[in-house]
Amino acid sequence: MGNENENENVQKKLASVKKDLTTIRHSLAHVLAKAIRNIYGEENVKLAIGPAIDNGLYYDFDLPSTITTQEFTKIENEMHAIIKKNEEFSKKVLSRKAALDFFDNNEYKIELINEISENEEISIYYLGNDFFDLCRGPHIESASELKNIAFKIANVSGAYWRGSEKNKMLQRVYVYAFENKKELMDYLTQLEEARKRDHIKLGKELELFTTVDYVGQGLPIMLPKGARIIQILQRFVEDEEQKRGYLLTKTPFLAKSDLYKISGHWDHYKEDMFFWGDEEKEAFALRPMTCPFQFQAYLSKSRSYKDLPLRYNETSTLFRNEASGELLGLVRMRQFSISEGHIACTAEQVQDEFKNSLELANVMLKTLGLDKDVRYRFSKWDEKNKEKYIGSAVDWEETQNYMREILDKLGVNYFEADGEAAFYGPKLDIEIKNVHGKEYTLITIQIDFQLAERFKMQYTDFDGQKKYPYVIHRTSIGCYERTLAFLIEKYAGAFPVWIAPVQVKILSLAERNENYAKQVFEKFIDAGIRAELDIRNEKLGYKIREASAVKIPYIVIVGDKEESNQDISVRGRKNENMNNINLKEFLNRIKDEIKNKIIN
Amino acid sequence: MGNENENENVQKKLASVKKDLTTIRHSLAHVLAKAIRNIYGEENVKLAIGPAIDNGLYYDFDLPSTITTQEFTKIENEMHAIIKKNEEFSKKVLSRKAALDFFDNNEYKIELINEISENEEISIYYLGNDFFDLCRGPHIESASELKNIAFKIANVSGAYWRGSEKNKMLQRVYVYAFENKKELMDYLTQLEEARKRDHIKLGKELELFTTVDYVGQGLPIMLPKGARIIQILQRFVEDEEQKRGYLLTKTPFLAKSDLYKISGHWDHYKEDMFFWGDEEKEAFALRPMTCPFQFQAYLSKSRSYKDLPLRYNETSTLFRNEASGELLGLVRMRQFSISEGHIACTAEQVQDEFKNSLELANVMLKTLGLDKDVRYRFSKWDEKNKEKYIGSAVDWEETQNYMREILDKLGVNYFEADGEAAFYGPKLDIEIKNVHGKEYTLITIQIDFQLAERFKMQYTDFDGQKKYPYVIHRTSIGCYERTLAFLIEKYAGAFPVWIAPVQVKILSLAERNENYAKQVFEKFIDAGIRAELDIRNEKLGYKIREASAVKIPYIVIVGDKEESNQDISVRGRKNENMNNINLKEFLNRIKDEIKNKIIN
Repeated sequence: MGNENENENVQKKLASVKKDLTTIRHSLAHVLAKAIRNIYGEENVKLAIGPAIDNGLYYDFDLPSTITTQEFTKIENEMHAIIKKNEEFSKKVLSRKAALDFFDNNEYKIELINEISENEEISIYYLGNDFFDLCRGPHIESASELKNIAFKIANVSGAYWRGSEKNKMLQRVYVYAFENKKELMDYLTQLEEARKRDHIKLGKELELFTTVDYVGQGLPIMLPKGARIIQILQRFVEDEEQKRGYLLTKTPFLAKSDLYKISGHWDHYKEDMFFWGDEEKEAFALRPMTCPFQFQAYLSKSRSYKDLPLRYNETSTLFRNEASGELLGLVRMRQFSISEGHIACTAEQVQDEFKNSLELANVMLKTLGLDKDVRYRFSKWDEKNKEKYIGSAVDWEETQNYMREILDKLGVNYFEADGEAAFYGPKLDIEIKNVHGKEYTLITIQIDFQLAERFKMQYTDFDGQKKYPYVIHRTSIGCYERTLAFLIEKYAGAFPVWIAPVQVKILSLAERNENYAKQVFEKFIDAGIRAELDIRNEKLGYKIREASAVKIPYIVIVGDKEESNQDISVRGRKNENMNNINLKEFLNRIKDEIKNKIIN
Repeated sequence: MGNENENENVQKKLASVKKDLTTIRHSLAHVLAKAIRNIYGEENVKLAIGPAIDNGLYYDFDLPSTITTQEFTKIENEMHAIIKKNEEFSKKVLSRKAALDFFDNNEYKIELINEISENEEISIYYLGNDFFDLCRGPHIESASELKNIAFKIANVSGAYWRGSEKNKMLQRVYVYAFENKKELMDYLTQLEEARKRDHIKLGKELELFTTVDYVGQGLPIMLPKGARIIQILQRFVEDEEQKRGYLLTKTPFLAKSDLYKISGHWDHYKEDMFFWGDEEKEAFALRPMTCPFQFQAYLSKSRSYKDLPLRYNETSTLFRNEASGELLGLVRMRQFSISEGHIACTAEQVQDEFKNSLELANVMLKTLGLDKDVRYRFSKWDEKNKEKYIGSAVDWEETQNYMREILDKLGVNYFEADGEAAFYGPKLDIEIKNVHGKEYTLITIQIDFQLAERFKMQYTDFDGQKKYPYVIHRTSIGCYERTLAFLIEKYAGAFPVWIAPVQVKILSLAERNENYAKQVFEKFIDAGIRAELDIRNEKLGYKIREASAVKIPYIVIVGDKEESNQDISVRGRKNENMNNINLKEFLNRIKDEIKNKIIN
């Protein structure tokens, strides 16, 4: 393991490896590290890790001072200078002892070396003669290969060593890197577009939500316009579920540890939960999932096969103790609300109930206009990490096969992923990408063959036998806040009229039209339209610009002509002008648009 | 202090005291204590305390075994035997030292004696020569005066010494006691009636909510019918508030300790909160109130006098770390939801905004039919316990006078109560009694002159000056769960149609009417009525009894005659029969009843 002959063989192999973008980016990370060392001095820099990523690379440094944006050009210039030297990347295999000596003043590398298993080779890569880094490779052969590569330092952010808050905060330098200038420019343009749609940026501009340091990270505050959208979505979901025979519950957001010990959360999920108290006396935890709570409705009386399927729904609030580095706007939070539901059914009913759950999810996606943007992931357990799950391997295989069969029968176009299941069963996850290309789960449907037994949820079958039902865990819209984030990005804040927090804004042309504007406003309010009134003594153009900026679907203008005609003029969001149209006619039009949930 | 002459004087005075019911009940408590001692043996009984209460008395005993209901008659007989002896109640004043000697084997009495201040007399009361108890009196002169008193042991329950879970659990024996047999019987009848209406009993019978030991005390689980009522109330309140210009928010249920340090909760309310974490790094608490969270909406941008009043509302979930002994059904919980709102306004606007808040609360009470059952409490601070509050005495007096002025101007018929204010300002509390006569706060409207400054909530006045707004904290319906509890008791579960979780149940007479019953059921569903269908092959009488038991407003019966006429027969909750009436006509009638929120 790791003698000179083997080393030579590996070198040869490496030379034949295709110099793909990942290799190029990873090699550029070494260039970045060397540049940082050259600028800040070897004695001041400790290198941690520096992988290639989707749009380039990053490197984590332990440095005595913070790198500012003013230094970016200097670093980029140093990188170009290094590349110009055409130095070689060369590999050297070391014994563990030699490796530990090489990095004796770098606790990060020492930690990494100690984690390399006995069977693995330990190697470093030189770039030129004066710079080396612990690295598995592969690399390009010479820095000259980087000459045409286009790169740009993106930003520097704090990153805990190994992502744990218990460790030291390092400085992570992100670099965009692409094969040529055009690709980099295209990417930057696309990024700029994405930034405009970014839900955090638009959420602030459109006054949808805010965050406050002293309240806490991952705990967004929904401002009136954001809260109104969630109220609209919530009522829509609850009503759709009621139509489909769901029974609403409202269950507590915390429970004693006793509950979580039965469900398995205490053993398999505790670190992701907020908990407190003395376990010997009374310990509590905020719920990370609704299942064990909603099960109590099933358990509140004895059940017969005639009662099944029993479909429960709840607009549920959940809490997860996410690491602060993971938190992101309305997409990853420490508290969120979700359209959670559980269906208890017999084995014969599972397929139909699964189908109906999927159909409901698809209706939701379609109504919101997100149906084209998703893909379906069949999330399975990780059989190499059995301890992360409850239940036997046989049960898992059986249920996964059963679920695959259902998915195939329903013609779902899915891909499979190991290690993404819930700890109690496999899932169908409906995934969606945000404007930055990162994928998140929006909706999930799970088949659970285990929790009913843990909670002693039984029913009496027609033959008098006591049996455990299957439980389908499902969401119809998923997390409301996350859905809102994707709606913001999808529509760049110009929401479909039925969702728009303000649907119409009425502007008066001049002070003398104030009374007529108020009358028109009242007509909209009486019709149940979310309307705002602007009768300020400001220029009409100014008032229009203000209303357009917050993407209100319809701007209603009333001036002298409208007042004398007793009608209105309307300007749509795409600058469609409807001059002097009948108010009642327009009211009917907008009411239809709302009722039919039209997406423009 | 406490010599023989003074003792004589007190005795004389006592003789002249009217032997009111409280004195009689308190004297009966001594009889109970003597009876317990006689039965269980002096060496086995430690007496704690035994006061008179509203419907009789109780006494807390430390006993080696639990008193069972089987022993009640024996104890009552012993009490009658003691009374028959006509023994005298006689007082003896003791020095502190003598008192401590008298009770040297009773840690409860020793604790009480040590708390008696230097200025107070320490006395014991004898009943006959062989029984005495530490007691301030007054008492009746002789047990013979109890001869006509009617009493009955009500129950025995566990009670921690001084109400603290840290202390030993004692046995509290409750005794009903009245002037004569008739009054006792009347009380028992009334009690029976109250028990039938008790929201915990009915909540279970009508499947509105349940509680589960391993979830936790004070954390009720709303079953589908209870959850549906709360959903209906919530939508009603949110819509009424929206009509009145409120802006909806949705804010987090937890925050870092930093927030509560600004608001004052950390110093003045911490023991009532659930909190966890390391204060040096990151500590969290579940919110006991919404104010500091909702304030963040105000703070999300700069404000001008033109923006005021700003009215925010939220269907908010709150958490309070109540002692387990205080918890009661849906009335006192560890988690509850509330129609919380805050109005930021100028000094000139306070009176109008207060008036509107009160008007909204009264609309709610009237719509729910609870308006006749409430009284208004003006809750002030306790100037003897200034440390419990924030702000100066001058500010408190000023705001309380201001609030009294508003209440008087509005003609509110209120009473005043010291020490019931919030820690940041005085309140108007709308109080309601439950079926057992215990009073609870349903709705509250508060004037706060302090928190805006703590949170630096400012506005720019018309003269360019930065000012702090007044903040009105208010609820429109108060706690939803508690309101539901009072609605259950008010209507004995027979809710007004607009609230009823199931409004109509359709029963088929025979199997052959199944299809027609389904058609009728669909008509109700299409009309947006909450309907259930019972087409089981059971006797009609049985099906009617079942539907009546859960107090469904209208039972619709369809048999052969109805099917051939294409009409329906309806039975109301008060047994009103409407035979063979037109379905459409009845649909219109019930829709009207719902729309107008009729209370029968």
